[in-house]
Amino acid sequence: MDTICAISTAQGVGAIAVVRASGPQAFAIADTLFHQESGFASLPPQQAKFAHLYDGEQLVDQVVVLKYAAPHSYTGEDMVEISCHGSLYIQKKILEMLIEGGCRMALPGEFTQRAFMNGKLDLPQAEAVGDLISSQSETSHHLAINQLQGGISKKLHLLRDSLVQVASLLELELDFSEEDVTFANREELDRLLTDIGTEAEQLAQSFKIGNLLKTGIPVAIVGKPNVGKSTLLNALLQHERAIVSQVPGTTRDTIEDTLTLGGTLFRFIDTAGLRTTSDEVEQYGIERSYEAARRAAIILYLCDNTQQSLPEILDDFHQLQQHVDTQDKHIIFIFNKIDLDQNISGGHIDMMADHYPAIAISAKNRQYIDLVEDALLDFVESHRVQDMALLTNERHYGLLTSIVQSIADARQGLAGNIPTDLLVEDIRAALTDIGTLTGAISTDDILNNIFGHFCIGK
Amino acid sequence: MDTICAISTAQGVGAIAVVRASGPQAFAIADTLFHQESGFASLPPQQAKFAHLYDGEQLVDQVVVLKYAAPHSYTGEDMVEISCHGSLYIQKKILEMLIEGGCRMALPGEFTQRAFMNGKLDLPQAEAVGDLISSQSETSHHLAINQLQGGISKKLHLLRDSLVQVASLLELELDFSEEDVTFANREELDRLLTDIGTEAEQLAQSFKIGNLLKTGIPVAIVGKPNVGKSTLLNALLQHERAIVSQVPGTTRDTIEDTLTLGGTLFRFIDTAGLRTTSDEVEQYGIERSYEAARRAAIILYLCDNTQQSLPEILDDFHQLQQHVDTQDKHIIFIFNKIDLDQNISGGHIDMMADHYPAIAISAKNRQYIDLVEDALLDFVESHRVQDMALLTNERHYGLLTSIVQSIADARQGLAGNIPTDLLVEDIRAALTDIGTLTGAISTDDILNNIFGHFCIGK
Repeated sequence: MDTICAISTAQGVGAIAVVRASGPQAFAIADTLFHQESGFASLPPQQAKFAHLYDGEQLVDQVVVLKYAAPHSYTGEDMVEISCHGSLYIQKKILEMLIEGGCRMALPGEFTQRAFMNGKLDLPQAEAVGDLISSQSETSHHLAINQLQGGISKKLHLLRDSLVQVASLLELELDFSEEDVTFANREELDRLLTDIGTEAEQLAQSFKIGNLLKTGIPVAIVGKPNVGKSTLLNALLQHERAIVSQVPGTTRDTIEDTLTLGGTLFRFIDTAGLRTTSDEVEQYGIERSYEAARRAAIILYLCDNTQQSLPEILDDFHQLQQHVDTQDKHIIFIFNKIDLDQNISGGHIDMMADHYPAIAISAKNRQYIDLVEDALLDFVESHRVQDMALLTNERHYGLLTSIVQSIADARQGLAGNIPTDLLVEDIRAALTDIGTLTGAISTDDILNNIFGHFCIGK
Repeated sequence: MDTICAISTAQGVGAIAVVRASGPQAFAIADTLFHQESGFASLPPQQAKFAHLYDGEQLVDQVVVLKYAAPHSYTGEDMVEISCHGSLYIQKKILEMLIEGGCRMALPGEFTQRAFMNGKLDLPQAEAVGDLISSQSETSHHLAINQLQGGISKKLHLLRDSLVQVASLLELELDFSEEDVTFANREELDRLLTDIGTEAEQLAQSFKIGNLLKTGIPVAIVGKPNVGKSTLLNALLQHERAIVSQVPGTTRDTIEDTLTLGGTLFRFIDTAGLRTTSDEVEQYGIERSYEAARRAAIILYLCDNTQQSLPEILDDFHQLQQHVDTQDKHIIFIFNKIDLDQNISGGHIDMMADHYPAIAISAKNRQYIDLVEDALLDFVESHRVQDMALLTNERHYGLLTSIVQSIADARQGLAGNIPTDLLVEDIRAALTDIGTLTGAISTDDILNNIFGHFCIGK
């Protein structure tokens, strides 16, 4: 095993930066950066030491060094952490010196990959490290930290234990297959498989909301032209920006048209106004609006009842439903422009004819925007799972879908009285998928794919 | 004294980030982030500990914490360093929790300012921390680390000791002034002051090269139109870029038209071709070329001897000298386009008539570009001072200039036999300036001006 090194702090100039080395030669290589009298060689693990780091006789920096002795380190290997002044020159220089000493530049995610290889983390936990680092909202953070803590892993281990139980019952039968004995109670087996199937199905299903919560909930603001879609979007964004800016210097690069409410990221999708038109370009824009609505989890259906009656509005909405299946969408009706209508007061309104929540607002005057935000958050609340052990990872989802299918196949085979060895095959396929999920079974391809998306230094 | 906190690593997402708190309440406030059983409260100083950081019952992150007990810390106060996963959310969250616990967000450079206040660093050393972090080249790094190590401070202390010696000699005289006794040997005093003046003068003079080495040496490529100025610049830049790119991922934001050679930054100044013209716009461009040449420390005078004879070339150069005082410039003649001339071989050439170094190259074919680089480096070598204790700071330069003046005044007074109390005034003025330089005397204005330019977290 070679010894790797990387800058682990964010790229750029900072007050301090941290350079890490991990592997069997980490201590010996780091030792060459310090003069003998520095005492680095005899430094006990986990003891921070102020030391002078030299390139020959040239002082490179005054640093703090820390040793972590295997297996009590992040990677499970011997590790050295050097906290240096965060100039580009010093960061680069220390890295060069470590490489000259025999380290190799770490690949993306290689520290975490080694932690996985050394059994410090299973695969979903290792994947959670990547998610944790890239999480920008409270909700995506909670999902990642839960997964890092083993939230998903525990559920998978329970599933695996149940499947192993089924497999051993069936394999016992196989051992005695020549005697044509049926040991396993078929009803008992079916009950077990049903429970496993339900568990796997629920976990797989949690991907839908888990993925939305992790990557941001897509919200389409849909409506006829000039009902105030952009004004509403600006009102939502600016309202929140004022809140965000109370903590200065923490988030500098905001992405257009996303909004964090109550710790959850919402992604707003711009849409063109909906109307019947013969203009081909405009028609294309409207088709894109439908597409946006199809992709959205939440549709803010915006209307202007100073221009249209309620039946007309509902009529337009039913028109939209011709193009977009709204069954699994969270629909919120927004009646805008109360500033133009003396007769309507703002706030929640009862649409009677329809069962959707409806709010009357003035986007222009920023009135009742809070209620729109609350309605967006209701979606999150209604889907929030207590333990936050939601599937957020496409890879996990794919494997769980395959597991669900294998269990269904096994149950069907059981009902059709197929030979035991074929049943065992289904159960083994499911066990292989779980192994691939937790990392008990792994290939270079899988690992490269996972850790290749990490940043260097993690 | 309140307790301050800041993110000390570079801004943005990284594998890890470091949040620091410093002040009398640092331990108590940090303690609130960990559950009691974490053992944070009883953690010995300088011992790294893996710990779970909570917001109430919600796990925020798995971190490594370190305590530094006053006075054995960077600031000289109690300090806590939290190494967390480098997501924006976690960095911001930990900062918020520290602030909620009673910390105040640190001002730029406030950690270093406290180190200065607590006598861990004098003012030039504190200023060196800022220079060190922003240094991008080996040379500017060496200058800053030398200053951090006390290179400048030592020279200033020697100066101060000599001035104190002079002052005490004179003040002894003042004590007995009614008796009209002259204790101090005037010749001895003059010798002392001459030495002090020479020392101060040398240090002040080192600012010229020190500042160039720190901020980059300005190089103007000057010559008639179409002699290949841009081709030469590109040849220099691309040649070096190939070398730089051997260390991937370390410097991403390159600045146009600067080049690090042998560890020293060179800043190339674009100039328009020089020729006699009646075109007003072009004339303006040429005036700007003169201006660039005036600002440059090095002038690469580029010519094309396939178009001009040597006497013509020298004639043009003397024309340039009408507009630009080249006395204190490092001039290098470059004869370009050897690819067009079978009769001339590349490399160093002897211009006979003039004493400037001259090199024949082909910028187009990238031939003998190495020699141009060597010639640029010769400038650095000829100015390199062994101990690298060069003045690089405008503030220091201003004060030293004032010290040099006070010493000169004192010497003049001595020669003119002015009363002792007036002599003492000059010496005291010089001592005050040295005190302001080292920080023995400081005002809020001076400190704000210095540390206000630091980054937050340092």
